[in-house]
Amino acid sequence: MFTEEYFMQQAFKQAEKAFDEGEVPVGAVVVCNDLIIAKAHNQTELLTDVTAHAEIIALTSAAEYLGSKYLNDCTMYVTLEPCVMCAGALSWAQLGRLVFGASDDKKGFFRYGKELLHPKTVVLQGVMEAQCGGIVTEFFKGRR
Amino acid sequence: MFTEEYFMQQAFKQAEKAFDEGEVPVGAVVVCNDLIIAKAHNQTELLTDVTAHAEIIALTSAAEYLGSKYLNDCTMYVTLEPCVMCAGALSWAQLGRLVFGASDDKKGFFRYGKELLHPKTVVLQGVMEAQCGGIVTEFFKGRR
Repeated sequence: MFTEEYFMQQAFKQAEKAFDEGEVPVGAVVVCNDLIIAKAHNQTELLTDVTAHAEIIALTSAAEYLGSKYLNDCTMYVTLEPCVMCAGALSWAQLGRLVFGASDDKKGFFRYGKELLHPKTVVLQGVMEAQCGGIVTEFFKGRR
Repeated sequence: MFTEEYFMQQAFKQAEKAFDEGEVPVGAVVVCNDLIIAKAHNQTELLTDVTAHAEIIALTSAAEYLGSKYLNDCTMYVTLEPCVMCAGALSWAQLGRLVFGASDDKKGFFRYGKELLHPKTVVLQGVMEAQCGGIVTEFFKGRR
């Protein structure tokens, strides 16, 4: 039951929530021992705050839950490749594992290399890629 | 009166506050039309949150004050060269101008290049460099 797709599906549900609220549809969950300890979606418009990305909110919420700044034993599932800001935050948190759906060639951190993350963070990409990327494409199509 | 040193001095006062609270001593202020619209110091320990850097808190606070996510007409004065996370956040905010004190060769964003910031952001470095760097050195000396 607890497959990569299962947890990415939960992150995707968060992205759908963002979509419905007129936010760029990105969602994230943080998982520790098969338990989802944090969920979040992008809220930059609602909060008038560029830092309110799904990853930042989920990371803060997970740290609050654990009572620790560090997420070494956690996996973050996020629908879109994190940006530079979020990669930097995940690096400070020493995230154990990052799983993302769709790539983001324009704003994703990978163009600067994997070293933006903590050296110990394991990365898996492409889980539910088409669906996770599709909702973003659909969002921006509706805006034009 | 409103020199670069004047505003950096205000950021430095925030760094001193962080020092007194046992936080890595970094402080920041955001200035718009010679008015300080936000001040903050590093609070990662207090908040158990790796994202609670002075720059992130100051940026969120400035956006709240302005009612806008974008800080095109603002200058941020920060005592230490921002990290990758903070540079990414400042890029999203389209910060007009960044003035920092001491360089951070290990964690500063400059090792990845100025393009981590928004293309329009003007950068000035080295204001009160010795003082801004000295308080960080002193902090870590006291920890060993």
